[in-house]
Amino acid sequence: MILVNGAAADSVPVTDRGLAYGDGVFRTLPVKQGNPQCWQWHYRKLAHDCAALALPCAGEEVLAAELARASRQQGDCVVKIIVTRGSGERGYAPPASPRPTRIVMASALPRYPEEFARSGIKLHLCRTRLAAQPRLAGIKHLNRLENVLARAEWNDAGMPEGLMLDEGENAIGGTMTNLFIVEGEALVTPDLSRCGVAGVTRERVLAAAARQGVACGIENLTLERVLAAREVLLVNSVIGAWPVKELAGRNWRPGRHAARVQQWLDEQGD
Amino acid sequence: MILVNGAAADSVPVTDRGLAYGDGVFRTLPVKQGNPQCWQWHYRKLAHDCAALALPCAGEEVLAAELARASRQQGDCVVKIIVTRGSGERGYAPPASPRPTRIVMASALPRYPEEFARSGIKLHLCRTRLAAQPRLAGIKHLNRLENVLARAEWNDAGMPEGLMLDEGENAIGGTMTNLFIVEGEALVTPDLSRCGVAGVTRERVLAAAARQGVACGIENLTLERVLAAREVLLVNSVIGAWPVKELAGRNWRPGRHAARVQQWLDEQGD
Repeated sequence: MILVNGAAADSVPVTDRGLAYGDGVFRTLPVKQGNPQCWQWHYRKLAHDCAALALPCAGEEVLAAELARASRQQGDCVVKIIVTRGSGERGYAPPASPRPTRIVMASALPRYPEEFARSGIKLHLCRTRLAAQPRLAGIKHLNRLENVLARAEWNDAGMPEGLMLDEGENAIGGTMTNLFIVEGEALVTPDLSRCGVAGVTRERVLAAAARQGVACGIENLTLERVLAAREVLLVNSVIGAWPVKELAGRNWRPGRHAARVQQWLDEQGD
Repeated sequence: MILVNGAAADSVPVTDRGLAYGDGVFRTLPVKQGNPQCWQWHYRKLAHDCAALALPCAGEEVLAAELARASRQQGDCVVKIIVTRGSGERGYAPPASPRPTRIVMASALPRYPEEFARSGIKLHLCRTRLAAQPRLAGIKHLNRLENVLARAEWNDAGMPEGLMLDEGENAIGGTMTNLFIVEGEALVTPDLSRCGVAGVTRERVLAAAARQGVACGIENLTLERVLAAREVLLVNSVIGAWPVKELAGRNWRPGRHAARVQQWLDEQGD
């Protein structure tokens, strides 16, 4: 089911600024047995991203209710929430009093082979680079052509993700996931102050690591450093954590750190 | 009037990739006395931009007919054409056989004071920088959050445009216009191989200059160089050419080169 501003609908006005300019933000989260997973984390991030674009965000209760309604008849599913600046006059200038469009839509959970989480995945190395835009870095906004171009580089059901670098050859993340590597006993995740999306699952791993007393750095990670890591893993809200078993000719076996991150995420699904 | 895939409509599916990812391109052109201005230029650019995103583009006759239909009852107007990759499965991967969405919509011509073209405009200097993304540079795609953020920096009806720089402090263009400066007797316009939109009017000025034997360089233009120029002007399909009379404390009087560019554009409205 799809709700647009609270009403069942399956379309938005042609004049919506989300379409015209990508002027909006989004979230994707699983709903299991009627429970939106980590809803507080997702709402906080949505509100944060809206604020970063000076976009009014609907209240938490409003969205939670719409989320429940949209997913009610779907069973376990994925819900996508989009908030745009709504329709406006022609031109880039945001309306002084925007009337945002909020879209809540439920769809089937994607089915990935269980071995992705257990044995790891092959990771494509994307040629498409992420541009450095500090003003938008970290935000899950609707300007995602770089991700589309990167994801179009390969077509192999056995290779579910690609690693994106910035122009300085730093690893930033997957097209739809955040990256962690293991060095010694520490986790390291890329600094996302110039590009990339700072996802909720990345935040949850950082919080869990802090709670468990596991060192977790936020640093520039060159591709060389990723390839030299003990373990490499990718996370997002829908997949949890996937170990990487192959990237650019380098091979890894799933290690205990990936298993530990998976356990943190499983335990924490509030 | 609005046409979506040839049928009168005012909405698009919520699942359209133009909304989800900004996965599409657009054009804006004036229609005067029933004639879309410089249609061949615009169609060629639309087809070019579609090709750059591996997006199938409707044929020229199809779009011309829809453009005529959408604008028929509007009098002189502006038509916006949007082509998106249509709806697809969830996720960034483009569908193998996309069914693009094409939107043709007519709206009123924006009314700018005549003195903008005659006496010049005050130009805001934007703080928002354009990120370098060679893979998307020049293309008029739907990922335009940078322009939105830049245009939100000021609100002054007497200041209709802002100048955007890249991270290296090179001037790239206005939020909705391309930039030319005059040095000696030559025109210079920014190199757009790393960011910016290579608009049709910029192309027309370059072509006219070549035809008239006027030197016109495509170069990196630092802000300092813009401020030291004899004349500064901004062009797009709707406004033609505006001289700049004020930017960052520097003042200009409208010069003969701006008048000449305006004349080229007037004469050439095929």
